[in-house]
Amino acid sequence: MGGDERYLIISSDCHAGLPCPEYRPYLDPKYHAAFDGFLAEKQADRAAKMAENADYINAWEEQEGLQGAWDSERRDKELNADGVAGEVLFPDADAITGMESPPFGAGLSAGAIADPELAFAGARAHNRFLAELCAVNPSRRAGVALVPISHDIDRAVAEIEWAAENGLRGGILIPTMWHHRTPYHDPAYDKVWAACQAHDMPVHTHSGEAPQDEYGDNIGIYLAEVVWWAARPMWFLLFSGAFERFPRLKYVVTESAAYWAADMLWKWDTYLGGGHTTKKLAAQLAGKVSRLPSDYFGDNIFIGASTMSREEVRRRYVIGVGTLMWGNDFPHPEGTWPNTVARLEETFHDVPVEDAIRMLGSTAASVYNFDVGALRPLADEIGPTPSDLGQDAGLAVDRDAVRAARWWKEGLVAPGAAT
Amino acid sequence: MGGDERYLIISSDCHAGLPCPEYRPYLDPKYHAAFDGFLAEKQADRAAKMAENADYINAWEEQEGLQGAWDSERRDKELNADGVAGEVLFPDADAITGMESPPFGAGLSAGAIADPELAFAGARAHNRFLAELCAVNPSRRAGVALVPISHDIDRAVAEIEWAAENGLRGGILIPTMWHHRTPYHDPAYDKVWAACQAHDMPVHTHSGEAPQDEYGDNIGIYLAEVVWWAARPMWFLLFSGAFERFPRLKYVVTESAAYWAADMLWKWDTYLGGGHTTKKLAAQLAGKVSRLPSDYFGDNIFIGASTMSREEVRRRYVIGVGTLMWGNDFPHPEGTWPNTVARLEETFHDVPVEDAIRMLGSTAASVYNFDVGALRPLADEIGPTPSDLGQDAGLAVDRDAVRAARWWKEGLVAPGAAT
Repeated sequence: MGGDERYLIISSDCHAGLPCPEYRPYLDPKYHAAFDGFLAEKQADRAAKMAENADYINAWEEQEGLQGAWDSERRDKELNADGVAGEVLFPDADAITGMESPPFGAGLSAGAIADPELAFAGARAHNRFLAELCAVNPSRRAGVALVPISHDIDRAVAEIEWAAENGLRGGILIPTMWHHRTPYHDPAYDKVWAACQAHDMPVHTHSGEAPQDEYGDNIGIYLAEVVWWAARPMWFLLFSGAFERFPRLKYVVTESAAYWAADMLWKWDTYLGGGHTTKKLAAQLAGKVSRLPSDYFGDNIFIGASTMSREEVRRRYVIGVGTLMWGNDFPHPEGTWPNTVARLEETFHDVPVEDAIRMLGSTAASVYNFDVGALRPLADEIGPTPSDLGQDAGLAVDRDAVRAARWWKEGLVAPGAAT
Repeated sequence: MGGDERYLIISSDCHAGLPCPEYRPYLDPKYHAAFDGFLAEKQADRAAKMAENADYINAWEEQEGLQGAWDSERRDKELNADGVAGEVLFPDADAITGMESPPFGAGLSAGAIADPELAFAGARAHNRFLAELCAVNPSRRAGVALVPISHDIDRAVAEIEWAAENGLRGGILIPTMWHHRTPYHDPAYDKVWAACQAHDMPVHTHSGEAPQDEYGDNIGIYLAEVVWWAARPMWFLLFSGAFERFPRLKYVVTESAAYWAADMLWKWDTYLGGGHTTKKLAAQLAGKVSRLPSDYFGDNIFIGASTMSREEVRRRYVIGVGTLMWGNDFPHPEGTWPNTVARLEETFHDVPVEDAIRMLGSTAASVYNFDVGALRPLADEIGPTPSDLGQDAGLAVDRDAVRAARWWKEGLVAPGAAT
């Protein structure tokens, strides 16, 4: 790729959602009464937020681009201007007052829903809307279906089948927290993983939920923990053997940063692959983790790292260039939209084009089965060039740096080889 | 310090405990019946472990040094041979079968005890034993009292007073997990923090407990999480303002590694001290966190990093040389005892003596109020020299490296200055 070829950019983290009342026609009528009560609470909550912070909310909501949360044409226009050709669509498009989120809170905090009936009703309403939105421009949109697997495994499998039949190839979003329900290591969930593997639908958690009832009014505790809670289901799957039983299963942790993966891979590999505990551990891990934990990253485990920091980009060979997927978080205010190209220049200006191609698009294309041939003409129109990102197109990947990045692996033995 | 002056080494992580049945005379007689039941379970548990792993257990238990868990003379002899002059004493001396742990599980997993009566009874039995053990050689031994603050705050304060009067200057060990009880951000605990500050007794958590009922039989999940759970109470205190209300309060996270602090300080400082969210956040943090989070490390927050890894030592200027305290974990098998000097050479051979003095002893001396003058003659007999550790005594601290270590702080504004 020369300095004037355009990147095919896929955002692995976008959000879509109707203004909450407009979900009504997508909701089974028997839930309409419950929905009225939910809406009333939601509106009271919005009023409270407005009373506290009206200037900020008004300034944000005046942006017409926010209508792209549900308006297909507007959405494409915003992404075109941002240089983004393909996208993965999560729920809860409105991060400010939460008004573009699914009925009954079935989006990013679905684990907290008490009644499984309502959890599935809200999820299905969103999934129906999302399938319509994605069908307008299927080569561009990989929609992520909401599937509250913690609330009912058989219904979850049925919803996965429906999502697959209806083109939601972005995979599924599962509740971040299982609360008092069955933890995700349990083989009871194998039916879910089997269905996801069969349809090549990645399983996701996305930041949002945390045990906030433990925090009092201390926002700092939430900041300190929230990405940990979002990533946690990943190691419940890994260490309980889900990727051994379902070797083509993919798991993506989205908008939960990525920096933590560097230390995690080092520590986990070291715990499991070396030192005096290996032999005893290897027996306990038999059939669950045959490879070194870092070897699952980029094969089964991926990180939707959204608006990566410079430091995370610097760690790309440790975490894995093939593990990291960039995203603009459209239309959330903490994302790079509507200034993506400028922000990409800040973050990627000294990154070799070969690495940037992967983190900005080609890994996501492979994880989410985008038809790259179909998207290429659009990318050729809207994508930024390496020159736009301030890159030197002649900069080569430093193979020595790649080899040295996972320095700890030398001499370690994979658990499956240690018995 | 030249190449042949001896280090004054303090282990910030040692363990002491009676063989469980011998706690009986330290236990109030009204709990003897409950204790008999507890002992029967304990012995059944040991039998099960023996059936599974007899060779390993027998080989370990044959070591006479293990009697140092409760035998004062033997203990000093072992530590002398290891070059360790001072020590901080935690419970649960027997990590293999758990037989040298306090009644009713009142040691490292005290949070799990259902009945507050038993939690305090077990804690008090251990504290009485520990006060006797420390009184034999008080300049050398800083005992850590067991105080299940989650189970009863007023009784906890009374126990802290008792511990202070009885020379347990190592501070207190609180339950790692509060389970369904009040989380540690709650101002209800201010009485506890006030008593600890008044007596200059550091508050500790120590690795061990984790929500294992969520893990099934997946040891890998425990490995992935256990240090996070041990460290977690620290940020509940920090972000709820405990160190603002009690500015001389000290908190130590022990035997939970230290590597994680590097990313933590970077992320927390960045969350709270910069970027577009600062102003709104600063209002929410008012009165709770006035400094950048990293500024509390080495002042209020310390890490009993036990048998530090090379990588942790490499990160010492990020985490703080004045935050890190080494420990040999005597008499646990995963520690450096009885090979401490050889292990120190591996880990510290390229570290300037000035840094090693702090991490191996002087920071702990200050945190735990050791009388360095009283310990110096012993250190001059038993302590290793820099030459013993393979160090070049002329190696100076690289001041530029110290300054560059916390690269992210430039331009950040402390929350208390941002309002």
